[in-house]
Amino acid sequence: MKAISKTEIQEQMVRAVESVKRTNPMAGSITNSVTINLVANAQLAVGGAAAMVYLPDEGEFLARAGGALYVNMGTLFPVYEETLPRAVRAANEAGRPWVLDPVAIGIGSLRTDLLRQFKTYRPSVIRGNASEILALAGLWGLEGGTTSSNVRGVDSTDQVLAAKAAAISLARWTGGAVAVSGKMDLVTDGSVVALSYGGSDLMERITGSGCALGGVVAVYATAATPFIAALTATAVFNLAGSRAESKADGPGSFQTAFLDALYNATAADIAENPFELEEVET
Amino acid sequence: MKAISKTEIQEQMVRAVESVKRTNPMAGSITNSVTINLVANAQLAVGGAAAMVYLPDEGEFLARAGGALYVNMGTLFPVYEETLPRAVRAANEAGRPWVLDPVAIGIGSLRTDLLRQFKTYRPSVIRGNASEILALAGLWGLEGGTTSSNVRGVDSTDQVLAAKAAAISLARWTGGAVAVSGKMDLVTDGSVVALSYGGSDLMERITGSGCALGGVVAVYATAATPFIAALTATAVFNLAGSRAESKADGPGSFQTAFLDALYNATAADIAENPFELEEVET
Amino acid sequence: MKAISKTEIQEQMVRAVESVKRTNPMAGSITNSVTINLVANAQLAVGGAAAMVYLPDEGEFLARAGGALYVNMGTLFPVYEETLPRAVRAANEAGRPWVLDPVAIGIGSLRTDLLRQFKTYRPSVIRGNASEILALAGLWGLEGGTTSSNVRGVDSTDQVLAAKAAAISLARWTGGAVAVSGKMDLVTDGSVVALSYGGSDLMERITGSGCALGGVVAVYATAATPFIAALTATAVFNLAGSRAESKADGPGSFQTAFLDALYNATAADIAENPFELEEVET
Repeated sequence: MKAISKTEIQEQMVRAVESVKRTNPMAGSITNSVTINLVANAQLAVGGAAAMVYLPDEGEFLARAGGALYVNMGTLFPVYEETLPRAVRAANEAGRPWVLDPVAIGIGSLRTDLLRQFKTYRPSVIRGNASEILALAGLWGLEGGTTSSNVRGVDSTDQVLAAKAAAISLARWTGGAVAVSGKMDLVTDGSVVALSYGGSDLMERITGSGCALGGVVAVYATAATPFIAALTATAVFNLAGSRAESKADGPGSFQTAFLDALYNATAADIAENPFELEEVET
Repeated sequence: MKAISKTEIQEQMVRAVESVKRTNPMAGSITNSVTINLVANAQLAVGGAAAMVYLPDEGEFLARAGGALYVNMGTLFPVYEETLPRAVRAANEAGRPWVLDPVAIGIGSLRTDLLRQFKTYRPSVIRGNASEILALAGLWGLEGGTTSSNVRGVDSTDQVLAAKAAAISLARWTGGAVAVSGKMDLVTDGSVVALSYGGSDLMERITGSGCALGGVVAVYATAATPFIAALTATAVFNLAGSRAESKADGPGSFQTAFLDALYNATAADIAENPFELEEVET
Repeated sequence: MKAISKTEIQEQMVRAVESVKRTNPMAGSITNSVTINLVANAQLAVGGAAAMVYLPDEGEFLARAGGALYVNMGTLFPVYEETLPRAVRAANEAGRPWVLDPVAIGIGSLRTDLLRQFKTYRPSVIRGNASEILALAGLWGLEGGTTSSNVRGVDSTDQVLAAKAAAISLARWTGGAVAVSGKMDLVTDGSVVALSYGGSDLMERITGSGCALGGVVAVYATAATPFIAALTATAVFNLAGSRAESKADGPGSFQTAFLDALYNATAADIAENPFELEEVET
């Protein structure tokens, strides 16, 4: 099978961005309370619509009514024991893409139990930092995974690359895509790996840049394949991060400028943000 | 009965704004977790004080201790099954005004059940977009209502006007006021309709401008009639939206400038924000 | 015992600030949903790392895994009945400092019950406004306390001084420190009282400046004594508040500039922010 070319990928990224700006698609979320506002604002900034819920029947409703579902494990409530499996099952049954952000994997019994269940429901995109991706692959018994996770800090380029095998395993298991966030970002569908560049160190001095990225992946997943959605969201975050840094005096003004930059990024800007492709040997 | 004149309305708006700035009244809220921070900050910016709770006895306490109560249905938690009816009943019994924001009406069984119960407790102000107002009138079996709701997007002027009959029915049922938010805003007490102008398209690119409006209605409801409270809050939002847009490069800087503009708007500025009056034929 | 000198205190403040910037310590929080985002962003801005949870076993995990724990009583959920005692006990058993913010003391039965239990677990730092400190000392039956609380508004210098005896009693009971926030801030370990100056009236026009201060106290408590942690956090907030006010057009731009100023404050800047010392007669 001939691999997809960089130009074809960029054309698909352009179409995803333009489709979202034109159709204002809704991606529902069940997400953590720390960064829920930034997730919604980032989704709105790129042209999507946001809706967040906690209750089981509402989770099912959103999974069916939205174009995609975003599930972030950051701050679990007791009711999530019922809400998350029902929402994810509903997304699966309705053929809706869903994005999993395995935040803080390894903390607490409910989180571990839920993440274990999610293996069956094969998330369309998994987004996390390197240690989270390694730990999820480990929890699911896939090649390249580890049995421990380091939930601290931003991952270096070396660390992102160390999660490559785990990311590929996960993408092959789900049939979707995996995005590993760090100083350099890695996105793979199991057969191609894209390395995306840009961003800013200030993204680690505001809370929720990773969560917001996951929410924006869900918005693009309403209009593109999992791989294109993950790469497009990663590219617009890298672009907006670089642009915002040039205007910022610190993390407060960075966050303001970052949302502005998400909003103002054109489809061409996003597709042209630097990335490299490599094929995965099988 | 002679209708109230525009000048009399403006004088009452001025008094409401000045009273709030002088007395810093507390309006408690039970509100959604996505926009809870913006609701509080908007309430503080206009001169009020904010307090948010989730538990039943705390909801009752706030309903009695505050000058008004704001109830937003955005993100329901299981405990709301008990908290919301008890808080609303306490507000009623204590003679406190309360503001209902029927966000996402139609999603989930608890939301429907609670909104049905609220008919008896006659909210002093109901604030929503056109489709929410239509759906609430429908749920309560009032004239002009519909049995379905479209929870998506900002409503055009035509859509706002299409909710006029439902808004009037609701206001007559409650004996309070109804505010329909959209490109143009409609506020009615069932005998007079005010159409308020201004705002910015960027208000739809940040999450929570509607919720924050509801919270600010509650602040003004501590110091004015439901109709004046709803119109004053709508006017300051339209004014601040216009002013913020002129300073914004996107939704991030818009939100910052919007809070600044809420804070800096004088009573005279707010009363002079453009609106039109029409009497309702009975 | 010879009292600590101002110079020694300033040297310890410098070491605390530099240690945090260098080691990026994690202080976990169980905190209210209104201001949770600002708490995290303030913790990140000074160089710390943030993590927030709600569930009992996750609270225990954070209490052990972090360098300190922040407990804010603002918006209680039902699960807190189990989560808070278990987390606080875990912090105690692990010898981790923990910071208590008795927000809204006096509202609701669960809050009162939990705050009563916390007497045994002796928080390393208690941070509140004057009326909260008076009420907590009263609830715990300590000298200088009152049996009622006024949960409204910012406290004047006179009010802060009126809470001095209660703050000293609390600090002596816990063996830690107490920070009373107001126009002037008072920090004591029971033997020395520091009065810290600066800040801005706009800090009361944004929600969460007090909560964010509590979260930053926890960050510094990973690297300093309770007294130094409380004083350092108070100093950087007073410094950042003053600097942000000079750049702000209102509460929106103030919050942005405040986070920038927290980020940009150097250790020397913070140690040199004006404060006075007085010994407590015993």
